[in-house]
Amino acid sequence: MPSAPKVTNVEPLPASEAKWIEFQKISWSDQEGKGRIWEAAARKTRGQSGVDAVAISTIIRHPSRPPSTIIILQYRPPVDAICVEFPAGLIDAKETPSEASVRELHEETGYKGKLTYISPTIVSDPGMITANMQLATVEVNLKEGDKEPEQALEDGEYIERVIVPLDELFQRLEKYSEEGKRVDARLWHWAAGLHFAKTML
Amino acid sequence: MPSAPKVTNVEPLPASEAKWIEFQKISWSDQEGKGRIWEAAARKTRGQSGVDAVAISTIIRHPSRPPSTIIILQYRPPVDAICVEFPAGLIDAKETPSEASVRELHEETGYKGKLTYISPTIVSDPGMITANMQLATVEVNLKEGDKEPEQALEDGEYIERVIVPLDELFQRLEKYSEEGKRVDARLWHWAAGLHFAKTML
Repeated sequence: MPSAPKVTNVEPLPASEAKWIEFQKISWSDQEGKGRIWEAAARKTRGQSGVDAVAISTIIRHPSRPPSTIIILQYRPPVDAICVEFPAGLIDAKETPSEASVRELHEETGYKGKLTYISPTIVSDPGMITANMQLATVEVNLKEGDKEPEQALEDGEYIERVIVPLDELFQRLEKYSEEGKRVDARLWHWAAGLHFAKTML
Repeated sequence: MPSAPKVTNVEPLPASEAKWIEFQKISWSDQEGKGRIWEAAARKTRGQSGVDAVAISTIIRHPSRPPSTIIILQYRPPVDAICVEFPAGLIDAKETPSEASVRELHEETGYKGKLTYISPTIVSDPGMITANMQLATVEVNLKEGDKEPEQALEDGEYIERVIVPLDELFQRLEKYSEEGKRVDARLWHWAAGLHFAKTML
């Protein structure tokens, strides 16, 4: 029976032990030509696409239900909480970000969709890390009576998928936060933009 | 005369030298009760608010111009590019995230506004870093003939502010990307949500 995951210890990680991330001491020349130093963290896993990760904003269309999206809930040790995120994943060494977006959506949610848009390369927290990503839009068209598909998770992956009508997304994320879950900043911004368009313009 | 900033060297940063960030070796107990290790990077600057940073989605209302927001352009050494972001900043040791949002907006853009909403704590890239933030909404109401205010930047800060009508934001971000600038993932998501509401629903 699954138990609640939790952090049991945090200690400094020696650079020589790190397998997934690395620290960079960046020397740069500023706007006045002066030499300066910046500290950053980087992923060691970036492949030939030059892009670390892809996230997927899904739109599910159904004959008798409102347009919806899929979000996922999973425990994230760095923040010791259940996080609420768009489906997402690192890009494998030889795949394109577009291929990764359709693959990751299928693995994490079971849904197969059609990629309709992919963003240029965008950067996650560029004051602190080199990490970058692309945001895909994938459309899933369901017919009346279609069954909920099976996820294709790996052993040891615990990912809960939730279908949320777009009209309810922002309030749902507020509610998750009140419950102690942590919403991913990028998903929050997407939902806030959507909510803002409906309520403030 | 300002020159173009650029990265001149990147080398591994020993943990003992790092002033701003640190590496964490996180031991955690998974859903099956099994002990596992996760690697993460953290900011060393988090104050008593428990939140690292705040970003500001501004709405500028003006009697004869369309509703607009403010974005900023600044060089970011971790990605060696001009980045396009919402105004944002770290929270000082003794201030609240709400106070920081009004202060940062004023410093980086010159505009003084009224905080109308602040998000719960949300997490930036929670698979890799412990960093968190809050997203504020600040409204600026201008009158006909109001002059553009002066920024209150510190010495050595080069931050360009750009006022963009909300209706043009998504296309503007696409254009910046084509020019080789790098759009912050959170700003991109906000603009994509806004654009999605207008075009897909």
